[in-house]
Amino acid sequence: MDTLTAADLQQILDEIAHAMAAEVDRGAPATYIPELAHVDPSQFGIAMALPGGQVVAAGDAATPFSIQSISKVFMLAIALGRLGDTLWQRVGREPSGAAFNSIVQLEHDKGIPRNPFINAGALAVTDAILKGHQPREVLGELLRFLREAAGDDDIHINRAVAASEQATAHRNTALAEFMAAHGNLKNPTAMTIGTYVHQCAVEMTCEQLARAGRFLAGVPGSPRMVSSARVRRINALMLTCGHYDASGDFAYRVGLPGKSGVGGGILVVAPGRASICVWSPGLNAQGNSKLGAQAMERLARATGWSVFG
Amino acid sequence: MDTLTAADLQQILDEIAHAMAAEVDRGAPATYIPELAHVDPSQFGIAMALPGGQVVAAGDAATPFSIQSISKVFMLAIALGRLGDTLWQRVGREPSGAAFNSIVQLEHDKGIPRNPFINAGALAVTDAILKGHQPREVLGELLRFLREAAGDDDIHINRAVAASEQATAHRNTALAEFMAAHGNLKNPTAMTIGTYVHQCAVEMTCEQLARAGRFLAGVPGSPRMVSSARVRRINALMLTCGHYDASGDFAYRVGLPGKSGVGGGILVVAPGRASICVWSPGLNAQGNSKLGAQAMERLARATGWSVFG
Amino acid sequence: MDTLTAADLQQILDEIAHAMAAEVDRGAPATYIPELAHVDPSQFGIAMALPGGQVVAAGDAATPFSIQSISKVFMLAIALGRLGDTLWQRVGREPSGAAFNSIVQLEHDKGIPRNPFINAGALAVTDAILKGHQPREVLGELLRFLREAAGDDDIHINRAVAASEQATAHRNTALAEFMAAHGNLKNPTAMTIGTYVHQCAVEMTCEQLARAGRFLAGVPGSPRMVSSARVRRINALMLTCGHYDASGDFAYRVGLPGKSGVGGGILVVAPGRASICVWSPGLNAQGNSKLGAQAMERLARATGWSVFG
Amino acid sequence: MDTLTAADLQQILDEIAHAMAAEVDRGAPATYIPELAHVDPSQFGIAMALPGGQVVAAGDAATPFSIQSISKVFMLAIALGRLGDTLWQRVGREPSGAAFNSIVQLEHDKGIPRNPFINAGALAVTDAILKGHQPREVLGELLRFLREAAGDDDIHINRAVAASEQATAHRNTALAEFMAAHGNLKNPTAMTIGTYVHQCAVEMTCEQLARAGRFLAGVPGSPRMVSSARVRRINALMLTCGHYDASGDFAYRVGLPGKSGVGGGILVVAPGRASICVWSPGLNAQGNSKLGAQAMERLARATGWSVFG
Repeated sequence: MDTLTAADLQQILDEIAHAMAAEVDRGAPATYIPELAHVDPSQFGIAMALPGGQVVAAGDAATPFSIQSISKVFMLAIALGRLGDTLWQRVGREPSGAAFNSIVQLEHDKGIPRNPFINAGALAVTDAILKGHQPREVLGELLRFLREAAGDDDIHINRAVAASEQATAHRNTALAEFMAAHGNLKNPTAMTIGTYVHQCAVEMTCEQLARAGRFLAGVPGSPRMVSSARVRRINALMLTCGHYDASGDFAYRVGLPGKSGVGGGILVVAPGRASICVWSPGLNAQGNSKLGAQAMERLARATGWSVFG
Repeated sequence: MDTLTAADLQQILDEIAHAMAAEVDRGAPATYIPELAHVDPSQFGIAMALPGGQVVAAGDAATPFSIQSISKVFMLAIALGRLGDTLWQRVGREPSGAAFNSIVQLEHDKGIPRNPFINAGALAVTDAILKGHQPREVLGELLRFLREAAGDDDIHINRAVAASEQATAHRNTALAEFMAAHGNLKNPTAMTIGTYVHQCAVEMTCEQLARAGRFLAGVPGSPRMVSSARVRRINALMLTCGHYDASGDFAYRVGLPGKSGVGGGILVVAPGRASICVWSPGLNAQGNSKLGAQAMERLARATGWSVFG
Repeated sequence: MDTLTAADLQQILDEIAHAMAAEVDRGAPATYIPELAHVDPSQFGIAMALPGGQVVAAGDAATPFSIQSISKVFMLAIALGRLGDTLWQRVGREPSGAAFNSIVQLEHDKGIPRNPFINAGALAVTDAILKGHQPREVLGELLRFLREAAGDDDIHINRAVAASEQATAHRNTALAEFMAAHGNLKNPTAMTIGTYVHQCAVEMTCEQLARAGRFLAGVPGSPRMVSSARVRRINALMLTCGHYDASGDFAYRVGLPGKSGVGGGILVVAPGRASICVWSPGLNAQGNSKLGAQAMERLARATGWSVFG
Repeated sequence: MDTLTAADLQQILDEIAHAMAAEVDRGAPATYIPELAHVDPSQFGIAMALPGGQVVAAGDAATPFSIQSISKVFMLAIALGRLGDTLWQRVGREPSGAAFNSIVQLEHDKGIPRNPFINAGALAVTDAILKGHQPREVLGELLRFLREAAGDDDIHINRAVAASEQATAHRNTALAEFMAAHGNLKNPTAMTIGTYVHQCAVEMTCEQLARAGRFLAGVPGSPRMVSSARVRRINALMLTCGHYDASGDFAYRVGLPGKSGVGGGILVVAPGRASICVWSPGLNAQGNSKLGAQAMERLARATGWSVFG
């Protein structure tokens, strides 16, 4: 199946987009961030960045959406670049076996979040990057990283979404304060939370995100953002922890590392082959894009791509 | 790095075995199974089955040891062959975020174990295979499967180890009775536990296990035991759940699917390249082979093999 | 209100029985013990043993029912008499904050149950009494204790109920095996479980139980079964732990120590005044008699009795 | 023993104070509130308010200390007076089976704290009283209530202690934000936390607190602050929940309702007989005064007072 051409892949994406358009049960957009609650759930987009810079896409692949937790992947890359393995003193690397915003695990583990992709862990990562820096510096670095990785300067933060999330950030604040109580938050809670909601409020299209993920897929011709050893490790974390308590199911059904966001996007890595982004705003019970996960399962079946053989 | 020859790999294994022999802190053998407690912790073996039937090995690779939980991989393959996806009504596919023998999760999830590789899940798998069969039939099927996969008829159950484990099986019995209380155990508890302790008491050498795992690695020339779609799924489960609450760490450090056993063995799959078995009886805090995990990290670094790029 | 005469109390009981007869929502009998599932839920009885040997009663107060967990109070009295404070090495004295048959707490506390009135704790108590004795000896001692306390030899074990509970004792067996795994069960699990289901299957009437509880109420003229210091401690445990995770609510509404059983009985102690037993087979969500709890709240209001002022 | 005179009780208190002065292992003051960490642990005081307005005392009974969580009792009385039973929509009445500042239970119960005496529950009570009022009004009402109950106008808030607690209130803030995320906090978190740390920073002596608790003991001649039905209910909550996860032990050993504070005070109610306050700053593992609990056990033994017979 390694001989799939760009035209083959375009046809696969078209078929998937066609099938997804016909789906009735599309899940529901997240309601806890008011600005995201009224996104039109009928939208669906998918894009794939291939070796040599080519991008194939279908559906609403040029529509910007809120990347939300997909930002955690890029922030992790930045944090590892800045702090190296000392980051792991503040956050673990194990699947949590619990929901994305659970606080139970934090009490059990004395303020050390299980991994960088649950909310508590992402707050610890952001807090670690913030050390000695202002929020705007950190957000500037994230935007530069994304723009360079995507090869596209038109990537911005939607400040209305950030403000909307900040106004209802009680649960994330509880996580942050709980970590602070254990000495695992170094900056003022409001500063870390404020930075976090802005990183989540970055808006990108499927095409932009697919391109931004090329460095993780190691597709020939992609910008080299981090070392290949680090790429593997980030991919390992995406595979084991990228979909909260549905990570095992995604690995089983799709077989590729991925990271979902509550905005309905999923960034997926097919090592050596492609970086893929799918988006549909309706979520399933675990908080992942319902059609996005279905589309990726179809894509894996159609291409035969899997890291598992 | 794809051009590594058998001679290159032999040299890598020799270097690893040499380094492991010098390790002072080797962990301690499991004590809860009396027959395993007095295994000599100075032992270390590693073997690798390559395309075309070749096997390279180093250290005590021809010494039989108790495969224990590595049997769960083969029993899962048998169960999926017999029951297909209906198996997933009785056991989940998510990392548990807890120890191998935790009962907390079972109460939370009303008797449905998180995945087939924690003890409760393995008991559910064995129970599912038992349906309408006698324990000796099921154990016979497991031995046939292992012998065919390994291409070696000299694979047996150590009945003294089985008896030793049965005599101290309180915790596994608690798990089984708890599932029975939720209707998720169909056979008499003693029958399921009895079968389980015997499957765990299979003895194999590193060389035998490496050959038996070839079908998961899909190395050319290996016997085709299950479909390639199923192979991928079993590998996905090994990667996300194969090392209990150290699964994420193994994925991060080694980057290959693996399954550990309390006897000190770890079966590892490098898709398309090799099936690997490493063994050393001393365990770390998570109940996985201490030197085995270290050796696999060295092996991954030396070969560059990883499913993640 | 301390001047209530037996005639006053008789009238209060009559009014309560009358009101309870009119209740439509009566809860449902326990279904997990098949023999108890078909008890007629329309029944209601209440009896009160007063100073000087007098008993007042109303409703079905002369109908025998399965005392179930009320037996835990008497077994605790026997265990403290035999073992003294060394009993508390095997079981705690704190409310559990969880359901009667939860196993989560056991894992957290390494096999030590929170208190003697949850199932795990009662199993530890029975196991402690069993040490060096046969089940029939222990059950004989319980019957002697009950008969002496009640002043009535017509108290027996319903063996059909015991057999019915034993056949479905998976969850209690799980608790016992889990404690055995932590070294907190000394006898064979089957022996402890067998004794436990028989102690639960004692049948008594409201009148018999009210009389049997006189020693806890310390009403003048009652047989002295244990020291007054020990009486206070048993009463304290009943108040804090006697109704599982509804113990706080019972203390708040009724204000008297009590112990409920899944057979629908509740034994209540009004220190210095009366020993009371109420019975109605339908249970509420916490596994306590629905009408029994309501009746006791009415009784407390009508009499003004409370340990709290 | 009901014939104990004030002189008898004075002698008992003197003996207890003498014995406590000789204790070597006195526990350690709370360290998480910096202002409390340097309180001299050698101090010990005890006072008892008797019928007719008499007070007997021994040791440092006239030294003011920080009442901390003992304030929760009085705030509960105020909240019940203002809101009646609607308060119970926001907080439960069950022992928590967990530490005073656990957040695990809050996640399990969707933001409804188990009882008003753990921190989360007390925050809910304060938040309920705050509704439509300013913090200074609520604190004014608390001080008026305490002064009237104690018959003493010299009761104040130590603002340095409040500021010290506020500066390190991460864990309480986490609890508050978590409740806010579930809609169970109605005022701005900072307002509720700010009021809470000030109510905890009230300073009183043992003599003042003993007098302030008379209405709970219902000793003849005490001011009637709330109805007798409500008194019983508050006492019930103190008995089942007043010492966090040592409440059962206190009920077992002492047999009287009590509420401890992290400042080292314990307020204890002997219904109809006396209101008692004991204080010593060193705490045990459960966060209750180590010598205070010992002294109360001695007092209960010496007087024979117990609500349990």
